[in-house]
Amino acid sequence: MNEQWVFLSREAKGIYAKRLGHEPDLTEMKILFGGKGAGLAEMMAAGAPVPPSFTITTEACVHYMKTGDFPEGMWEQTLAALHELEVQFGRTFGKGLNPLLVSVRSGARKSMPGMMDSVLNLGLNDQTRAAIAEMYDNEWFSYDAYRRLITMFSDVVMDFKRTHFEHKLKLLKQKEGVRGDTEISLQGLKTLVDEYKAMYREHFGEDFPADPYKQLEMSIKAVFNSWNGERAVIYREHKGIPHDWGTAVNVCMMVFGNLGNTSATGVAFSRSPATGNPKLYGEFLINAQGEDVVAGIRTPQKITLVASRQWAAENDVSEEERQAKFPSLEEVLPETYQQFAVIARQMETHYRDMQDMEFTIENGVLWMLQTRDGERTALAAVKTAVDLAKEGLITKEEAILRIEPELVDMLLRPTFDPDAKREKIAKGLNASPGAAVGIAVFDAKRAKTVAVDGEDVILVRPETSPEDMGGMLVSKGVLTQKGGATSHAAVVARGNNIPCVTGCEEIAVDINRMQFTIGDLVIKEGDTISINGFTGEIFLGAVPLVQAKYEEQTDLLTLLSWADEVRQIGVRANADIGVDAERAIAFGAEGIGLCRTEHMFFDPRARDAVVRMILAKEQSVRDAALEEMLPFQEQDFEDLFDAMDGKPVIMRLIDPPMHEFLPPYHELLEEVVKLRITAPDSGELKEKEILLEAVSGMWEVNPMMGLRGCRAGIMYPGLTEMQTRAYTLAACRCAKRGIDVHPEVMIPLVGHVNELKLERAKLERVAKEVMAEEGIQVPMLFGTMIEVPRAALTSDEIAPYAQFFSFGTNDLTQMTYGYSRDDAEGKFLLKYVETGILPENPFQALDQIGVGKLMRLCIDQAKAVNPDLELGICGEHGGDPASIDFCYRVGLDYVSCSPFRVPVARLAAAQATLRNGRRR
Amino acid sequence: MNEQWVFLSREAKGIYAKRLGHEPDLTEMKILFGGKGAGLAEMMAAGAPVPPSFTITTEACVHYMKTGDFPEGMWEQTLAALHELEVQFGRTFGKGLNPLLVSVRSGARKSMPGMMDSVLNLGLNDQTRAAIAEMYDNEWFSYDAYRRLITMFSDVVMDFKRTHFEHKLKLLKQKEGVRGDTEISLQGLKTLVDEYKAMYREHFGEDFPADPYKQLEMSIKAVFNSWNGERAVIYREHKGIPHDWGTAVNVCMMVFGNLGNTSATGVAFSRSPATGNPKLYGEFLINAQGEDVVAGIRTPQKITLVASRQWAAENDVSEEERQAKFPSLEEVLPETYQQFAVIARQMETHYRDMQDMEFTIENGVLWMLQTRDGERTALAAVKTAVDLAKEGLITKEEAILRIEPELVDMLLRPTFDPDAKREKIAKGLNASPGAAVGIAVFDAKRAKTVAVDGEDVILVRPETSPEDMGGMLVSKGVLTQKGGATSHAAVVARGNNIPCVTGCEEIAVDINRMQFTIGDLVIKEGDTISINGFTGEIFLGAVPLVQAKYEEQTDLLTLLSWADEVRQIGVRANADIGVDAERAIAFGAEGIGLCRTEHMFFDPRARDAVVRMILAKEQSVRDAALEEMLPFQEQDFEDLFDAMDGKPVIMRLIDPPMHEFLPPYHELLEEVVKLRITAPDSGELKEKEILLEAVSGMWEVNPMMGLRGCRAGIMYPGLTEMQTRAYTLAACRCAKRGIDVHPEVMIPLVGHVNELKLERAKLERVAKEVMAEEGIQVPMLFGTMIEVPRAALTSDEIAPYAQFFSFGTNDLTQMTYGYSRDDAEGKFLLKYVETGILPENPFQALDQIGVGKLMRLCIDQAKAVNPDLELGICGEHGGDPASIDFCYRVGLDYVSCSPFRVPVARLAAAQATLRNGRRR
Repeated sequence: MNEQWVFLSREAKGIYAKRLGHEPDLTEMKILFGGKGAGLAEMMAAGAPVPPSFTITTEACVHYMKTGDFPEGMWEQTLAALHELEVQFGRTFGKGLNPLLVSVRSGARKSMPGMMDSVLNLGLNDQTRAAIAEMYDNEWFSYDAYRRLITMFSDVVMDFKRTHFEHKLKLLKQKEGVRGDTEISLQGLKTLVDEYKAMYREHFGEDFPADPYKQLEMSIKAVFNSWNGERAVIYREHKGIPHDWGTAVNVCMMVFGNLGNTSATGVAFSRSPATGNPKLYGEFLINAQGEDVVAGIRTPQKITLVASRQWAAENDVSEEERQAKFPSLEEVLPETYQQFAVIARQMETHYRDMQDMEFTIENGVLWMLQTRDGERTALAAVKTAVDLAKEGLITKEEAILRIEPELVDMLLRPTFDPDAKREKIAKGLNASPGAAVGIAVFDAKRAKTVAVDGEDVILVRPETSPEDMGGMLVSKGVLTQKGGATSHAAVVARGNNIPCVTGCEEIAVDINRMQFTIGDLVIKEGDTISINGFTGEIFLGAVPLVQAKYEEQTDLLTLLSWADEVRQIGVRANADIGVDAERAIAFGAEGIGLCRTEHMFFDPRARDAVVRMILAKEQSVRDAALEEMLPFQEQDFEDLFDAMDGKPVIMRLIDPPMHEFLPPYHELLEEVVKLRITAPDSGELKEKEILLEAVSGMWEVNPMMGLRGCRAGIMYPGLTEMQTRAYTLAACRCAKRGIDVHPEVMIPLVGHVNELKLERAKLERVAKEVMAEEGIQVPMLFGTMIEVPRAALTSDEIAPYAQFFSFGTNDLTQMTYGYSRDDAEGKFLLKYVETGILPENPFQALDQIGVGKLMRLCIDQAKAVNPDLELGICGEHGGDPASIDFCYRVGLDYVSCSPFRVPVARLAAAQATLRNGRRR
Repeated sequence: MNEQWVFLSREAKGIYAKRLGHEPDLTEMKILFGGKGAGLAEMMAAGAPVPPSFTITTEACVHYMKTGDFPEGMWEQTLAALHELEVQFGRTFGKGLNPLLVSVRSGARKSMPGMMDSVLNLGLNDQTRAAIAEMYDNEWFSYDAYRRLITMFSDVVMDFKRTHFEHKLKLLKQKEGVRGDTEISLQGLKTLVDEYKAMYREHFGEDFPADPYKQLEMSIKAVFNSWNGERAVIYREHKGIPHDWGTAVNVCMMVFGNLGNTSATGVAFSRSPATGNPKLYGEFLINAQGEDVVAGIRTPQKITLVASRQWAAENDVSEEERQAKFPSLEEVLPETYQQFAVIARQMETHYRDMQDMEFTIENGVLWMLQTRDGERTALAAVKTAVDLAKEGLITKEEAILRIEPELVDMLLRPTFDPDAKREKIAKGLNASPGAAVGIAVFDAKRAKTVAVDGEDVILVRPETSPEDMGGMLVSKGVLTQKGGATSHAAVVARGNNIPCVTGCEEIAVDINRMQFTIGDLVIKEGDTISINGFTGEIFLGAVPLVQAKYEEQTDLLTLLSWADEVRQIGVRANADIGVDAERAIAFGAEGIGLCRTEHMFFDPRARDAVVRMILAKEQSVRDAALEEMLPFQEQDFEDLFDAMDGKPVIMRLIDPPMHEFLPPYHELLEEVVKLRITAPDSGELKEKEILLEAVSGMWEVNPMMGLRGCRAGIMYPGLTEMQTRAYTLAACRCAKRGIDVHPEVMIPLVGHVNELKLERAKLERVAKEVMAEEGIQVPMLFGTMIEVPRAALTSDEIAPYAQFFSFGTNDLTQMTYGYSRDDAEGKFLLKYVETGILPENPFQALDQIGVGKLMRLCIDQAKAVNPDLELGICGEHGGDPASIDFCYRVGLDYVSCSPFRVPVARLAAAQATLRNGRRR
């Protein structure tokens, strides 16, 4: 066996390319070298000044796991690679005047909690410590590095917990009367190192290994073993990561930012992660280590002069003070700054995206420790993608693909005014995006009462359960002490667009006292708080909200215009009234895919007539009532046609069961029972009793599967005729006014072809009559919703009688799964999602495996008999990116979603084409 | 063109065989010669003495319809055929001493109301009448025949309604003071014929055609034209019969049974149509025409001596009187009788089935006028089929195929005691089979009240509507004045196994007075009536019911044993308790395909524990309640295993929503609202309020699609574990007692594979534990119902985790159609069936097009991944013959139905194999 187990980072990519026969991409690199190893190799390839390093491959780990031994040759290769590191800077490992210190880090294909992180300063022993003191002319530093090595090695490699060592450190600081580690005296440190060695000896019965090779070997084995550590295994089980991937081991020369005033350490973004502003952006500390930046004890300095001045202005720091205490890197180390700026640009060009970089300056020499694609806000994400495309770094198509469509949704939601003052009091998980302000209420029922009174409510609970559902739905936001991203609160909130922060363990909710506390701070019912579902932050008082103006988001508009060029699937909106339609048009909708005509049935002016129409026992009475309803309905439609000039408007005939337009049965029953006792002879009782009998007669055990949709159209003669008459009238009248109308009539809940045949013939006749009366012809399409499984199954029978199909995936999901949407989420569905019985809530993400199979079958059969059939979707899935991708793949012509989701859908539709290839 | 348009009946089959190149079967014969023509030809071929005849083909009719003229050569061929008739008996058409008289009859492929029936005695005019008088030595007869010709010809051919002629006849009878036509004087008849001729002349302005050829030509054209008569066209539209079939015309020599004491006419069955007793059975009248037998003025005589004597004994007629007045044909015309007996046997042999024959004896010469397969009772049908097979006339397979499976059901229902006296008061349509006795009630709500009081109710209505549903379901029988076989009453009754008579127009229902009348007879609420849904008969008072004993029906048992030899699909029963299981076994069930375990939940002894289990907020409380429930459940299962020794028992885990085991929400609400006013401080209120809150919390908008089936099993920890524990315990204990147990656990309402995986693993563990505890291993299968469309769609994911699938087609139909069974029938479904929107009620006959497609898809996918999967059906469709045929075709292993349907299913299953060919 003569395999290569160890690769110098600077050679890794080249050698692997030969072995593969092609240039490895990042995925391939990660398979062999893990994420961290691949990153080191990649940075080197990009020409960054990275401390010399090498990687022991995942293959070696796999071999070790199987056999318990290093594979043959691995150790020898490690020593050879180590020698290369020695040679590069003339340092020697574990000896000599210029000792080489290294770090050992694990690095699997995916980063994974529970695995060994890192051991620094390997190579130190009494001899090399002295040499280091000499080399850096800093004895204190040499002992500090030594104590860190012993602590880390004991903890990470030997499982002798660091708390034992930290306890000693604490005692020492107490003794010396200092607070910070850096304030400890040299003598103190010396004694501490001796104590650490003694502790180690006592605990293990042998000396801390002075042999640097022993240190290295044990560290490598510890990394390998950590792959099968308990937490790592559980994590992999949970995430479905295979156990046989293994981890790589990265060995890297140590560099130090804490060697004096020409040393520093910092982090930087190549562009602003908040706004996308294409300027270098970052912070550093002179004479510090990475952990000092994170610890937040010292105030970090800005990298650029511009940023530094802006910071000073915002924090009332005078220019004199700034220059003295907080100068920018640009000022302090101008040449190093210039070098870094060039490298940052270089990294961005190489990775073709905004970079988040860690660097260390050791005695004026810049070392890049890490670079990766930067996390960013939605705003920054869009701006960066558009800018990069404009700069020619990426294509427009790549820009489109870089933006998660949901980010677009975030850009359209209200956020906290970035300029407003705010008092952050806690932070939890960002469970459902959006910003919300309201008074804290601690009980779901109370929330309802308070909300009815017009108060904005933030519902605060230890956690939520199905009984809280009603209260959640009326709240502006939800905050829970417990629970993760898939907890009941999180799932319900996301499903209902309610901003939500969960798992905010900093707060202690006391429902009995109706308050929560954070330390001494007590928030009682009625106190105003603000929650940020984007970030998980909680603020005291009301943080002002700002609504991002869509029209002003020029980068977003640019991105969406590119998306429109690419996408092959239309985007329409679900809109019931003119104002919704106007909003939809503003967001780029290409028509109305679903107008729910029940809006008018709730119009107070039509109310009486609606009730009379429903309760009519004689057709003449019903006809008269319908006659009264017609003008209201007609006006609704005219508004829509006006707004949609030139674009199609799909009118869905009345869909809900008629009893939804009458008082609820339970309420009526209660009233009647009361009146029977309190006012047995009253006229009111008589009236209510008549109504109760009617409502009781219409009562259905399962209204969702009852007399609704086209069934109601068939059983209530004149009803759908009136709607079609109103719709055609509106179309004719608008057409006469010069509006370009494209009316389409959609028949809901068809399950058998005969229902469609019957209704279509009837309505087509009405439309013809109206057009004749009005003396104008408008082209009109007739189609059906596909929402009953049987309609999908028998689409070959139905398709010849329809000009379009629109998938009503809400109902289709209900019936295919046998889930009543009104009940399931509260009763079991969320629990199902929480416990992983269902991968997702099928009412949010289209169930591609089940419902999707039915849709495919439906489409295949229908297209075979009616190739011209137009296909769309108008369920809520029409606004869900993954579902839109599916819709594209199965060949739909358009999706229709709520107006606010139109921009999301436009982007998702473009991505669908780019991901799956152009169709036709 | 030299086509043959006219065929002599005796040559028809042979010539047609040459033309086709093979012996034509009856279907082919009917296409060309119509039903009647085919029958004449067939009888001749079978050697029966049929009066000479010929048939003008349907092709000629089609030609005539297209052109308005006889096709070329047809008339010449008609004359030639007529000449053959003349030659055969030396008679001459329209002249001579032996004039030939003929009848002309229409005859399409299928008999069709609205088409011309027949014109008799064609060929008569003044001259031939005289010759006939001479020939038969009967002048009265000659005039009688003449007046009949004029009447019929005018009416049928010339559309001059017969009522005008009948009015004259009536006047004549009044004048002569006689009642019967036969009592009219010769002189009277002479005058009448003259008057008829004068009427004809006056009406049409020309003489009644004396030219027999003219009579014949006009009659033939009238037959052709009647094909497009209004009623015939409407009928064809309704029945979907093509308009281009055309009708044939049959011309047949007249024979007369009313020429004196050696002439007679009669009808006979080759076996008893009531019992199937294989003896000649029939009636005749000496010196009479066919219509006299039907008219019922004279008492018909029996054909066989045995039957004649039996009749006399039953009717208290002495042997002397019988011999004098009512002798049998066997006695009166022994030779003719012998000839007839031989011919009857011959016909039966030829047609291979019981024959219903019409015959005429003209001066001692026997003529067979018609023979066809006899209508018969269910009893006779089974006996005849079995006897014919035993006699070797048909095969066992043919015997199986001859019995409509529904007939078997009828044999198992209670019928009226055939020996009991009964007073028939009316007759309507036999809308839903079965016999029922009860008091008349005229209002659906009253029916409920009365039924609750324990009375048997017959609901009597002018017609029923959805509001009557509840009342119908509690009634023993339903009687309506209006409505046909597809009316609301009929459909609901059939669907619910309620005997029903509809369209009984003889009764006048007055709901205001709560009574119905038949002439002077008044039946008020509370009066007992009996209705026979098999026959449509209504009787006054209670006719005793008898329950046919299955074990004593030897012919049925024989037939079913033959069916068992043939069928390839198993038949199991749906049975919940031991007594049902025993009945199922008696009926031949091969196992239990569905045990609904909710039976025990309603057991009064377990009631308290069930409620506690449901309402438990803590698991310990629930566990304790489940512990209490276990013994009852266990006992239920032991009973089943005992009954099913050696056969499989499928236990379905609890399925309905839990709130079904609690008091209904509405009732509780009413009580609480009342108590709040009347007893606001009572303990009862407090208790009820707690219960109300619990029930309200469990309330579901659509319970059918809510928390039930495996969803409940998952959400109520311990519930299905208890059931499985009880079931396994019962299996182990029975096994220890030597019972051969085959337990199978069925998990209901699975929609996602994870539900099945989870439940199966949990329950399998419980079963193992119990077997270990009991120290005995029993083989146990785990499977799932397929009743959620998604389960069917994703069967490839589910099948690997199931050992069997059982299609729950009730729920599958509900969800596939989106029909709530609790609501749909009352709200719109019956209307849909009535108006033809749906071809059938999909809850009765499996919707093969929609639901069936889903089942096929499910099976194909599932078998591909798990070829050993056992497949069954346990929805109500499992007892429906057409659905069973479908189940066979798609490859199910068994059907499961209610115990009473098991015999039906066994027969239907055998037929499925015979119709579709053996599988595998």
